[in-house]
Amino acid sequence: MRISSFSIHPVAVADPPIRSSYGLHAPYALRTILVLTTTDGITGVSEAHGGEGSLAALEAIRPMVEGMDPFQLHALWMQWGRPANEGDRSQTWMVPGENPRDARTRAFAAVEAACLDIIGKAVNKPVCDLLGGRARDAAPFSAYLFYKHGGGGGTGDDARADEYGECLSPETMVRQCKQMVDFYGFKEIKLKGGVLEPEVEIETIRQLRAEFGEAYPLRIDPNCAWSVETSVHVGVSLKEELSGGGYLEDPAAGMDGMAEVRRRLLAVGVETPLASNVAVTSLDDVVPAWRADAVQVVLSDPHYWGGLRAVQKLSDLCEALGMGVSMHSNNHLGVSMMIMAHTCCVSEPMKFACDTHYPWQSEQDEVLVGGRVKFVDGCVVMPDKPGLGIELDMDQVARLEERYRKLPFRKRDDAAEMRAHVDPNWERVLPRW
Amino acid sequence: MRISSFSIHPVAVADPPIRSSYGLHAPYALRTILVLTTTDGITGVSEAHGGEGSLAALEAIRPMVEGMDPFQLHALWMQWGRPANEGDRSQTWMVPGENPRDARTRAFAAVEAACLDIIGKAVNKPVCDLLGGRARDAAPFSAYLFYKHGGGGGTGDDARADEYGECLSPETMVRQCKQMVDFYGFKEIKLKGGVLEPEVEIETIRQLRAEFGEAYPLRIDPNCAWSVETSVHVGVSLKEELSGGGYLEDPAAGMDGMAEVRRRLLAVGVETPLASNVAVTSLDDVVPAWRADAVQVVLSDPHYWGGLRAVQKLSDLCEALGMGVSMHSNNHLGVSMMIMAHTCCVSEPMKFACDTHYPWQSEQDEVLVGGRVKFVDGCVVMPDKPGLGIELDMDQVARLEERYRKLPFRKRDDAAEMRAHVDPNWERVLPRW
Repeated sequence: MRISSFSIHPVAVADPPIRSSYGLHAPYALRTILVLTTTDGITGVSEAHGGEGSLAALEAIRPMVEGMDPFQLHALWMQWGRPANEGDRSQTWMVPGENPRDARTRAFAAVEAACLDIIGKAVNKPVCDLLGGRARDAAPFSAYLFYKHGGGGGTGDDARADEYGECLSPETMVRQCKQMVDFYGFKEIKLKGGVLEPEVEIETIRQLRAEFGEAYPLRIDPNCAWSVETSVHVGVSLKEELSGGGYLEDPAAGMDGMAEVRRRLLAVGVETPLASNVAVTSLDDVVPAWRADAVQVVLSDPHYWGGLRAVQKLSDLCEALGMGVSMHSNNHLGVSMMIMAHTCCVSEPMKFACDTHYPWQSEQDEVLVGGRVKFVDGCVVMPDKPGLGIELDMDQVARLEERYRKLPFRKRDDAAEMRAHVDPNWERVLPRW
Repeated sequence: MRISSFSIHPVAVADPPIRSSYGLHAPYALRTILVLTTTDGITGVSEAHGGEGSLAALEAIRPMVEGMDPFQLHALWMQWGRPANEGDRSQTWMVPGENPRDARTRAFAAVEAACLDIIGKAVNKPVCDLLGGRARDAAPFSAYLFYKHGGGGGTGDDARADEYGECLSPETMVRQCKQMVDFYGFKEIKLKGGVLEPEVEIETIRQLRAEFGEAYPLRIDPNCAWSVETSVHVGVSLKEELSGGGYLEDPAAGMDGMAEVRRRLLAVGVETPLASNVAVTSLDDVVPAWRADAVQVVLSDPHYWGGLRAVQKLSDLCEALGMGVSMHSNNHLGVSMMIMAHTCCVSEPMKFACDTHYPWQSEQDEVLVGGRVKFVDGCVVMPDKPGLGIELDMDQVARLEERYRKLPFRKRDDAAEMRAHVDPNWERVLPRW
């Protein structure tokens, strides 16, 4: 069995105007659907970050993938070459998916997932069963809350209804959370912060705690928007609210900043773990982050960490170091949803509910036959179907690809969107508070 | 596909009178052959340490394995339960395979290998291809030299010819090495030390270096027979001879002893890495060993580290920590030979040639159809056949099992053998020198 075709489909997905410290999401999120076909007619699918950077990396790996045996993933990785352990790999200034330093890792990850989908279909087993079997039968996800402006995303005929409405206050955030928890059944809650004044975000967390109680662990992630001083202030203020399985994610920029926040929080008796997907983005970063005690929970991602097996590797490394492991998310469709769910289910040390942007996308733009991935009590249940357990709706892919071709967006630029729609003078300033 | 039968075959294998700091090998080495069969008639084989301890652990895991889906290995591990991270797991006083603290891990490992053999046969792929594919196409092994008395092992009708002859001097060791390297094509050399006076062992290494040159990296392993003082003396004396890919393995006992040897060697400019399978025997030991700089090369083993995936995990952990990884061996037959070879080929960071006792066993006691595993230039080449790539000769298994039943040996006790055959007053004393 050899891979005989390698087909890349850039797509644009309507996305609501949600906010983070990077700025504002554009009306469309960019993703890439990868379809590999084998000589015996098996199709493997995958999903990667979108835009020109991703396309270029996938084009670069294509010649090594065409003709390969999909089982020989170690060989592909060794031939493709691991990125040099040098330079600033942090996502302080670049959103995940736009950092050229992990573009190669992301391309490999996309190919790996498609190959595992092929292998699963060839042997009639779900992907999770190819990777040691299920450490859990269902992958728990968290309610991923965003401050947002009014609007549902998309434009013209592609405009979507505004499912969650404007949300720029603690009260509307509680409403957003109730809506999301009611619908999906999530049992953990993540607030994307770094958008409003820290006192407002503190109040938001407090109101969420008051509404949902201790049974729903809380995390807040301002994407480095805060100074060390502010981070410590928030950590102290939310000592109780973030306890019991919650964490404080990337409050300040850089390994040094995170380590300083940790030292100062511990000095005043606040043991809230610090999580990160900004300071720590590759396997080479984990040991240094642990030595500095800068990070206590690493956010994995089967996309930019290099695939499902790479996340298993990361999870095992975190366990050996006594660190926690959780999962980061970007905007994504159902293919990534299943890649993330399989990854979680084969990574025993992953004890935190994973992040997902899935509630921010809609049926209208799903590329799966049968529509969106279903949630049960906040979890995606491992399928009995082979491979990733999904089938692509190629008409939908074609529709979203045609949309991509027509639209001007070729990379994610949240700052430009912020200037275009919210504040013409907006600049990303770190720390902002 | 479910496992419908679980069949355990204890076997006794003729073994020459080779020496280590634990004492003397008995005329028979004990191993256990495990055969699992599935509801659709696929057979998976495995090999484990021998004797009553191994049998008891395998009997204990049996009820969880009968009826299981062989793909669900994570679930089995979680149900079976990882050993508590406590107590002295070192092999300072107990030979590998006799330590009750890793008995459960070893039982799981035996089942995992048999399940992977089943899966490989079910999907028509070699085991290495189920674990990410080949990081290398052939597993390199080292010439594993032992001081020995005259005799080929076995007794009565089962006695074997003395292939290597008595070897209790540097000169005879060079002869042993030439014979082994000529036949197998090994490219690295390991001397089991801790048997003769350190000055004689130093001279042995020097003569090996003089004969084979820098192209053949050298390692020596006295199994903790030396004091810190003696270890440093040997390290300094063999600075040149152990350079260029060699190492000093378990010179002194305990994590503290190893760390002290390392400090003192570095202080005098000797950078020879210290390797260990005695101070470090489980994933919980690796980070502490690294923090103390007690060990720079960890010796894996797909048996007592918990299986092929556990060794992949260990290799990745070592790589993340900047440690080297190699592979330990006990007496074994062809089933373990293939388990070890597949493990090496799917563990990219394993850059050292692996240890194997295989040259110390013979065709006469091999349990594989077609006879012994073949070596090419010191390597075992990955098979194209599915699973482990081997088939059991059940007549041979029955013959060796009948022998086991008749013999009195039920555990490995090298000290008792030493007293019975060499010195009635022999005791294991650490450090001896």
